[in-house]
Amino acid sequence: MKIALAQLNYTIGDFDSNRKKIVECIDSAKSQSAQLIVFAEQAISGAPAYDLLNKVSFLDLCEETLRDIASHCENISVLIGLPVQCSNKTISVAALIENKKIKRYIGKKTIRSRDESSYLSPSKGCEYIKIAGKKVAVVVGEDIHTEQEYGEYADLIINLCNSPYSRGIIEKRYDFYRQLAFMTGKSIVFVNNVGAQTDIVYDGSSGIINSRGEAVTLLKSFSEDFRIIELDADHEPVRLPEQNKTVNVYHAIKLGLQDYFAKNGFKTACLGLSGGIDSAVVVSLAAEALGPENVRVLLMPSQFSSDHSVEDARALAENLGIEYQVVPINETFAALTTTLGPVFGELPFDVTEENMQSRIRGMMMMAISNKFGNILLATSNKSEIAVGYGTLYGDTVGALSIIGDLYKSEVYDLARYINRDRQIIPVSTIVKAPSAELRLEQKDSDSLPPYDILDAILYRMIEEGQSREEIINAGFNEKDVYKVYNLVLKSEFKRYQSCPTLRLSTCTLRINRRLPLTNKYGY
Amino acid sequence: MKIALAQLNYTIGDFDSNRKKIVECIDSAKSQSAQLIVFAEQAISGAPAYDLLNKVSFLDLCEETLRDIASHCENISVLIGLPVQCSNKTISVAALIENKKIKRYIGKKTIRSRDESSYLSPSKGCEYIKIAGKKVAVVVGEDIHTEQEYGEYADLIINLCNSPYSRGIIEKRYDFYRQLAFMTGKSIVFVNNVGAQTDIVYDGSSGIINSRGEAVTLLKSFSEDFRIIELDADHEPVRLPEQNKTVNVYHAIKLGLQDYFAKNGFKTACLGLSGGIDSAVVVSLAAEALGPENVRVLLMPSQFSSDHSVEDARALAENLGIEYQVVPINETFAALTTTLGPVFGELPFDVTEENMQSRIRGMMMMAISNKFGNILLATSNKSEIAVGYGTLYGDTVGALSIIGDLYKSEVYDLARYINRDRQIIPVSTIVKAPSAELRLEQKDSDSLPPYDILDAILYRMIEEGQSREEIINAGFNEKDVYKVYNLVLKSEFKRYQSCPTLRLSTCTLRINRRLPLTNKYGY
Repeated sequence: MKIALAQLNYTIGDFDSNRKKIVECIDSAKSQSAQLIVFAEQAISGAPAYDLLNKVSFLDLCEETLRDIASHCENISVLIGLPVQCSNKTISVAALIENKKIKRYIGKKTIRSRDESSYLSPSKGCEYIKIAGKKVAVVVGEDIHTEQEYGEYADLIINLCNSPYSRGIIEKRYDFYRQLAFMTGKSIVFVNNVGAQTDIVYDGSSGIINSRGEAVTLLKSFSEDFRIIELDADHEPVRLPEQNKTVNVYHAIKLGLQDYFAKNGFKTACLGLSGGIDSAVVVSLAAEALGPENVRVLLMPSQFSSDHSVEDARALAENLGIEYQVVPINETFAALTTTLGPVFGELPFDVTEENMQSRIRGMMMMAISNKFGNILLATSNKSEIAVGYGTLYGDTVGALSIIGDLYKSEVYDLARYINRDRQIIPVSTIVKAPSAELRLEQKDSDSLPPYDILDAILYRMIEEGQSREEIINAGFNEKDVYKVYNLVLKSEFKRYQSCPTLRLSTCTLRINRRLPLTNKYGY
Repeated sequence: MKIALAQLNYTIGDFDSNRKKIVECIDSAKSQSAQLIVFAEQAISGAPAYDLLNKVSFLDLCEETLRDIASHCENISVLIGLPVQCSNKTISVAALIENKKIKRYIGKKTIRSRDESSYLSPSKGCEYIKIAGKKVAVVVGEDIHTEQEYGEYADLIINLCNSPYSRGIIEKRYDFYRQLAFMTGKSIVFVNNVGAQTDIVYDGSSGIINSRGEAVTLLKSFSEDFRIIELDADHEPVRLPEQNKTVNVYHAIKLGLQDYFAKNGFKTACLGLSGGIDSAVVVSLAAEALGPENVRVLLMPSQFSSDHSVEDARALAENLGIEYQVVPINETFAALTTTLGPVFGELPFDVTEENMQSRIRGMMMMAISNKFGNILLATSNKSEIAVGYGTLYGDTVGALSIIGDLYKSEVYDLARYINRDRQIIPVSTIVKAPSAELRLEQKDSDSLPPYDILDAILYRMIEEGQSREEIINAGFNEKDVYKVYNLVLKSEFKRYQSCPTLRLSTCTLRINRRLPLTNKYGY
């Protein structure tokens, strides 16, 4: 059987453009005599569509688009994903098109993702169909992880999926399919979405694994791809490409940024450069993804900013060739302090004044965004966000956070990767001790454990769900562990108001981790 | 059978205090020879506990607390709700305690709430047990709406529930139970939670309906209550209390505010008074709920503030007897404008400068909050939030929004109710045309349809899910409808970052209505 795999970048609800892409691939597959073409789960609608999945008019358009696609399908069978209404519930199905007719729907049973559990209902799961003489088990989405009894019934397993990127997922997914192929003794075809939808990045990485668990073909990660393969031919096995987490994260962010801008019709970005590592990484990624001419930055020093911070920020902007302006916050800070003087009386400088500086900067960046239409990129990292070491409505403001799901140590990894060919981010930005510079000689390490310790504790707490005791037993200092736990717990309210954050881990804060704000238990 | 109904205000994860309350009621029921006492769904844990429902240590504490409670239950049967782990999934159950033993769990099948669907798994649903010689159908939560085949098996239906307040729910719930009793010919006992957990307010309103659909007893709405009834005695039917939506909303907000503060250990609130209706209603409710001595306000006039606004705000603060200070924003605005001058060049005053004023006020209120530990109350209403007529990080800032789920017209209703005995909110605040006062002679109606029209369109769009065509066909101006629809769609990103908002409707923005930010479909 000659089979085509179409790994495309869809836009939610953009039925015209999704259909066009789909039909082009069908035409191309037909012209090369493919007997079957496979698309991803919810290809027609784009995903995750949330409440749109329960709008009748949205679902009607999905089916209308499917019928239109079917009308192009002479001499080829098609498996394509879409949401459909089924006795007042919405299910995610693979539609089978044969001879220009929509023959049947195979529904998804397993709804595990929080992006789907309130919007989709479970259906029957895997079904067996005959295509071009072969018995095919059609499996939608995560059912591939739960429905593993393919026994005698199938010659081939086809999985239409919708699996977002997260740290380490690509290698894990390959491993899973290889193991499944090996265990079942069946070939497996898997077609994933690619492209970003606000905070979710689908990485693609579709492919075919033969019944010996060897890769027959692998499609690209992080970009569209299309492949036609004669399944029954003898193929030299393809080597699984080596995965580098930093490089993958880099591509995921780039794709995430580009799609967020392109799909929303945005062109230019802005952010504040502090001279620190976080904004340095964000601006470098933005310049790479959007072009340096589309990025505008402000340097907003205060009396507490060190000279080297301003110099580093300036050097970075010049290395990238982006427009920058220096706008000190001192005068606004002074005016605000004077105005609030009668209210504050003789109370000493404290975290209030630190937050005021951060909020003035946030306000300035929003003013730039409002005045010029630049989309503001947030610059907080996951370590900071986790412990609440950031000012709500201050440095956390933005339309999109691209490093908010990366621990500080991962931000450093990215910085080094960005500098792989030439020095873009000044070395001094990378080597100096992190500081918010909101009071005299402040260092992050004054109030937090060093970042390597902090990140290790956070990783165990957040990604691995370990208890305080487990982390302490692993050799961490008890005081540090309790401190970090408490900081994370008491800053939940800040994350409740966080901006959309590119998801790069399996436990993105706010999205995959949700605690009641009123809660005496802790965690 | 003598049955006790315990309608209590629990705190999530506060096992000690929840247990104490529960045991007190059990003791009281025993001392009055009740044979059965019924508590609400998830009474032991408090709800909604989100991710805590999948923490083993949290579930262990739930069961430990249950065992401790059971040890107090000589000579009485108990039905009480808690979450339990069941083959690696968490289900919501009613535990039956008899003779100090935990006899069985009856699980919940229907998981419809978005607060539960990612955290709880469906169980078997309604089961029949024998208590004090009676056959009892025990139904947890929403199963009461889906499992209506009680046939011959039951003498009595008991529903442990967890039903939050929303506009009109109390009368609907009574109607539902009366109809169910009438249809099945069984008596129904229903025990609901009462009290607020951050943004959710459980209204209580538990009761017993006899098999003729008459109320035998009704517990209070919006406060704890405890009742013992001899089920088999002849009771004079109780009249269903008349429900007034404004009064109910008033009580819901008061309870929401009080519990948010009490359960989080907060004492004092702050907000900005503009002289407009929204902040006037919020401060009046805060003064009523927390005491005027615990509320601090700032008046933050600009060059565009009218004299009457400042006067109205001052009069209001004085009527309430709360501390206020006048802090003009002009100097800070001037400093900010001067600093940004070189960046903005000759570009004219636009929405940027309007937003800057709003953000300076937000920043000042956050400074007060940081300096004095006052919890900032947001003042936006649902109409504004829906159309994005509010400044992100400006007037939308806060720790809790108490009127963010009320349309502007409902805010006026509340204002009139607040003034029911004496004039608290100045009449001029109620009668003047709404204005953000961010530029010269601005009125909300310059850019929005009048609020009665706006609210009617929004209500149809949001609460009733009507399409543009349906609303136009109902007699609304096409241009208005399209304008409102577009404003709602393009401001989704602001709501993504909104603060926790007391839920007072069945379609609270952000919570019950979630659209992809990247989305070409519209709605």
